[in-house]
Amino acid sequence: MLSRTVSRAALGRGTATVAKNASLRLTAMRAYATVRNSPLSEKLSVNGDRLWHDIHYTAQWSAPSPGGVTRLCADENDKKVRDWFRDQLLELGADYKVNATGTQFGVFPGEDNSIPPIAMGSHLDTVATGGKFDGPLGVIGALEVMRSFKEQGIKTRAPIVLINWTNEEGARFFPLLGSSVVYAGRSTVEKAHAAASNDASELTMGSELKKIGYVGDGPNTFKEFPISAHFEIHCEQHTDLEKAGKPVGWVEGWQGMTWYDVTFHGENGHANTYPMYGRKDALVGASKLVVELEKLAYEKNGASTVTGLHSRPWGACNIQSKCKITFCLMHKEAEGLESMGEEIMKRVKSIASLHGLETETDRTVHLLPGNFWPEAIDCVRLACGDKGIASRTGTGHDSTMTQLLCPTAMVFARAKDGISHSPKEWTDKDDCMESALVLGKSVLNFDDYLKAKEAST
Amino acid sequence: MLSRTVSRAALGRGTATVAKNASLRLTAMRAYATVRNSPLSEKLSVNGDRLWHDIHYTAQWSAPSPGGVTRLCADENDKKVRDWFRDQLLELGADYKVNATGTQFGVFPGEDNSIPPIAMGSHLDTVATGGKFDGPLGVIGALEVMRSFKEQGIKTRAPIVLINWTNEEGARFFPLLGSSVVYAGRSTVEKAHAAASNDASELTMGSELKKIGYVGDGPNTFKEFPISAHFEIHCEQHTDLEKAGKPVGWVEGWQGMTWYDVTFHGENGHANTYPMYGRKDALVGASKLVVELEKLAYEKNGASTVTGLHSRPWGACNIQSKCKITFCLMHKEAEGLESMGEEIMKRVKSIASLHGLETETDRTVHLLPGNFWPEAIDCVRLACGDKGIASRTGTGHDSTMTQLLCPTAMVFARAKDGISHSPKEWTDKDDCMESALVLGKSVLNFDDYLKAKEAST
Repeated sequence: MLSRTVSRAALGRGTATVAKNASLRLTAMRAYATVRNSPLSEKLSVNGDRLWHDIHYTAQWSAPSPGGVTRLCADENDKKVRDWFRDQLLELGADYKVNATGTQFGVFPGEDNSIPPIAMGSHLDTVATGGKFDGPLGVIGALEVMRSFKEQGIKTRAPIVLINWTNEEGARFFPLLGSSVVYAGRSTVEKAHAAASNDASELTMGSELKKIGYVGDGPNTFKEFPISAHFEIHCEQHTDLEKAGKPVGWVEGWQGMTWYDVTFHGENGHANTYPMYGRKDALVGASKLVVELEKLAYEKNGASTVTGLHSRPWGACNIQSKCKITFCLMHKEAEGLESMGEEIMKRVKSIASLHGLETETDRTVHLLPGNFWPEAIDCVRLACGDKGIASRTGTGHDSTMTQLLCPTAMVFARAKDGISHSPKEWTDKDDCMESALVLGKSVLNFDDYLKAKEAST
Repeated sequence: MLSRTVSRAALGRGTATVAKNASLRLTAMRAYATVRNSPLSEKLSVNGDRLWHDIHYTAQWSAPSPGGVTRLCADENDKKVRDWFRDQLLELGADYKVNATGTQFGVFPGEDNSIPPIAMGSHLDTVATGGKFDGPLGVIGALEVMRSFKEQGIKTRAPIVLINWTNEEGARFFPLLGSSVVYAGRSTVEKAHAAASNDASELTMGSELKKIGYVGDGPNTFKEFPISAHFEIHCEQHTDLEKAGKPVGWVEGWQGMTWYDVTFHGENGHANTYPMYGRKDALVGASKLVVELEKLAYEKNGASTVTGLHSRPWGACNIQSKCKITFCLMHKEAEGLESMGEEIMKRVKSIASLHGLETETDRTVHLLPGNFWPEAIDCVRLACGDKGIASRTGTGHDSTMTQLLCPTAMVFARAKDGISHSPKEWTDKDDCMESALVLGKSVLNFDDYLKAKEAST
């Protein structure tokens, strides 16, 4: 028996909220350890051609994005791919629901429908200038598994639910993990609907979901609609599998990451006539912070990325008086992440002081490093067999939200050169197929685990 | 007799164009030197209350901008202030015309209408979060002079024209000096109409001028409609007058200034998962350039300002793959300005090389330092008398365009703390009044100068 690794995770708006929301998942004893693949999973196969076709077929619903996909949350292309996903679920005979944050659920009965369903989920939205795999592989891979179950007459004891989460990327509306954070009880439907557009327009996630007809009356939270477990395929976004020569991986946990908004307020002035002395230039301050963020990553053996900079006023002849930057810090260790956060806030203060600027800072997302549930990891590890290795993810996923509530693990599919959030993102057809096969086997393994657990108690 | 100081000035799109357009105004001999104020000018008075009232009355036409004015070229407020100015001109009996770039002309006949009119001009557009004086003081001051001439029965030999130039600021559409650059033959109506919006929308100066009904059939160029001279009041935007305790100044010339657009092209990537090593982060490159620009100003005893930074893609989870910055370099000496430009281009290359970025650079405006016309400066200097001192401007004005064609000089009005392009921009009522008086006297002096010049030949 293994003990649950202690992990902390939090996601919420504002530092105070984050501190309050910070949860400590207590050590839990495992009732039963999965030591072999379930008999059904040994028989399972999936249709790699069909999966590959659908990944490329649905990529048509994109803003112009040569070689890649740009399908932002609740845009017209998101509507089209959602409609397509709904049709596939209905065709397979799902009990179909959409909730207030636009999450699509397709529930398939098991032999015992008193058990909460086992979920396979991911997201169909992408970033701007993104790829064909980050998100869609998870949802379409789950669909392929369900189709194969039906064709091969595989029936689980627990019901199964396929999920398309909303605004995982946060590319159009911030914060990210738009619907899974509500499902996990870490935010509310109201807050998710109020999520503001990154392009500084008046649009919100709520207004745009409504526009495309995806504000439904389905269940919004785990409390209303519990699941037994959550499994998710994702392209690796890193090079561990590629280096090891393996098509798949079981994901044991995630690195820590924190997002900040920092706004510098300076003073207006004439770009040509105001002397250098005495300027309060908000853009110079922000630029120095960008440079410090790069240094910090090297100093602390972490990583940092500035994901947006908005400078005002517009025009050709003004010293910039307001500049907001959004950035994230990443570290494998909680201590390293906390230390990076503390250090960068000191530098914000130094820069502000030396340039006569006022600052506003907001820690919008704070997710300490953690591990998925061992009972779920076991199911994926056994499903991978010799074809996989252990891996860790460098970012947050919808699974990082579900792991707050129930056994969760992820399947990685090998990615070319670790490139992601780019039209160059690529996973070979065979690797997509392998990852779907692992997902299907993992679900069957977990179904067996639930049976054995019940039998042992 | 003084000889015309040699100056070079150029303004145009792209480095190649600039080099071709660079003009060398040749040394010209003055026919006659003004040594005393004209008898009429000694009698002139202006109505400071009326001028002050109109400056504040017209400030109502502004986007919300507490204490200041935000009236961008061809927006709804620009239409309102233009309509008001038209009505004032018509009420004074002007021959009123609007040209294709939206320039408003109000011509008042003189005793000899075969002489090209003497112009008093400036602009009614402002920057975003600008003040009440930069631009409006020049146009409303000119109106006050014309009203006073009418009331006091002062008739000049040359006709007089009042001009409201379009998009002087370049705050909404780039490049700046939108209509005076066409008037000076340094750009075309087509190019001015195509001037792109700084907010990256599809709007152009042409489309928006049309929308507010300010594309007219009046004369577009000096060739079509020559003027004898151009005089302009402007708030000082510096602290020389304040330090000297003088309300007004005669402007002898301008410092050099160059605008560049530099775009860094990097590569898309996932903000959390992509390692620091091997990134091509366009925003990090641009931020390092901002930091270098500040250093450069100190190293070269010049000044520099980054007036805009646009980074893409939008979103919370992408390494920035495209970043455009717009900046200006300023120097009192031509050699210093050229040296700053050469040096910063070297640093653009270094940054691009160290970060694996591609670059596009465009020198959009290049104006070497120069001097106004001595015969016009004399008229302003005598008009100022003991109340003024010699001064220089740190930026470009519509007068920097007209000086390419005809005698031009400017009147400075004392500004509080040298602040400009800010809601804090301020010139006292008495100083506004003094500057209008100097403008009126300067026009009368120049009218006398033209008479004397004719008599002496």
